[in-house]
Amino acid sequence: MEIGKVVGRVVSVSKIKELRPVKLFLVQFTDHEFKVKDDFVVAIDTIGVGEDDLVLITQGSGSRLTKISKPAHSDASIVARIDNPDI
Amino acid sequence: MEIGKVVGRVVSVSKIKELRPVKLFLVQFTDHEFKVKDDFVVAIDTIGVGEDDLVLITQGSGSRLTKISKPAHSDASIVARIDNPDI
Amino acid sequence: MEIGKVVGRVVSVSKIKELRPVKLFLVQFTDHEFKVKDDFVVAIDTIGVGEDDLVLITQGSGSRLTKISKPAHSDASIVARIDNPDI
Amino acid sequence: MEIGKVVGRVVSVSKIKELRPVKLFLVQFTDHEFKVKDDFVVAIDTIGVGEDDLVLITQGSGSRLTKISKPAHSDASIVARIDNPDI
Amino acid sequence: MEIGKVVGRVVSVSKIKELRPVKLFLVQFTDHEFKVKDDFVVAIDTIGVGEDDLVLITQGSGSRLTKISKPAHSDASIVARIDNPDI
Repeated sequence: MEIGKVVGRVVSVSKIKELRPVKLFLVQFTDHEFKVKDDFVVAIDTIGVGEDDLVLITQGSGSRLTKISKPAHSDASIVARIDNPDI
Repeated sequence: MEIGKVVGRVVSVSKIKELRPVKLFLVQFTDHEFKVKDDFVVAIDTIGVGEDDLVLITQGSGSRLTKISKPAHSDASIVARIDNPDI
Repeated sequence: MEIGKVVGRVVSVSKIKELRPVKLFLVQFTDHEFKVKDDFVVAIDTIGVGEDDLVLITQGSGSRLTKISKPAHSDASIVARIDNPDI
Repeated sequence: MEIGKVVGRVVSVSKIKELRPVKLFLVQFTDHEFKVKDDFVVAIDTIGVGEDDLVLITQGSGSRLTKISKPAHSDASIVARIDNPDI
Repeated sequence: MEIGKVVGRVVSVSKIKELRPVKLFLVQFTDHEFKVKDDFVVAIDTIGVGEDDLVLITQGSGSRLTKISKPAHSDASIVARIDNPDI
């Protein structure tokens, strides 16, 4: 998994059926000291996050193994929140 | 998912059977402020897009989970359109 | 999918059983104006291509969904030829 | 698989159910002479590692084939430890 | 698939059960003229290779489709040897 910072919600999207029930967030990847990098991903929120949260992102087929992300034809999910960023 | 801008249609393609019914678009990836980058992908249109649309791209096995992209041996699909690009 | 140019055939290969019936080509990826880049891939030919052809490459599990590539333990296939490169 | 060095444990994480039983480590990728690079990954420990261990990382669907990582919606696992780094 | 050069064997590894029967080699990727690059991968040998061999590497789920690599939780396999490197 990669570490990212939630920087915004993707709100106005013409989704097809399977993506309608999910919330999509823009997540910027960070380095291992939690500084944001240029890369980002749009990911399904499976845990309930807010802006500026540091989160773990699963990509690929593993991203569709949660109850919330399963029906979606997506390739990225937020699967955990890092509460205390002292790694 | 990644964000991209539809820049053209790939029209003249000797496709094999499974790819014939689908529309293929050239999509340039953008940064999180929607500025196009050098990278691009050829993706199946599963929602009905037009040139200059900002879209979400799913890659890998997730790209084949829509009704339209399922029979195709592809690795990228356009799965949503961002109508209001204020993230 | 990505766009590539067929630059040669990989002929002299000690293949194991599943790869023996397939033809392997060296394909250099191109940018969206069809200029070749440094990156390349060795891909299974599922449609019948020749040198200098512009083609679409599917990577990952999607590359093994054609009748020809199915039995092979490969990760890349040529799945279409771009006949008229005016995108 | 890639080679990495275990640099810390990700301890304070609001995990959802499937990730609770697993231990997550921050692993920095190394070059083939075991010098750490900037890239890293958060991976499930399937073998019992400690800080500074050199390990092999499997990514993608293969990372979920061990007994420990199977139930998790992850995309990276530590699957072996390199005891004698003289390759 | 990508082209690589076998540069060494990874011998001293605390493997878990599924990886014990396989041989792991360090393979450096090459460009299309067979010059080694900085990138490398640790891959399962499914064909019987030796040092300096030029080989084809399959990554992802396709790497686990050979009889030898099937039980392993790996993401890369050596699947062919290029005997005559005149592409």
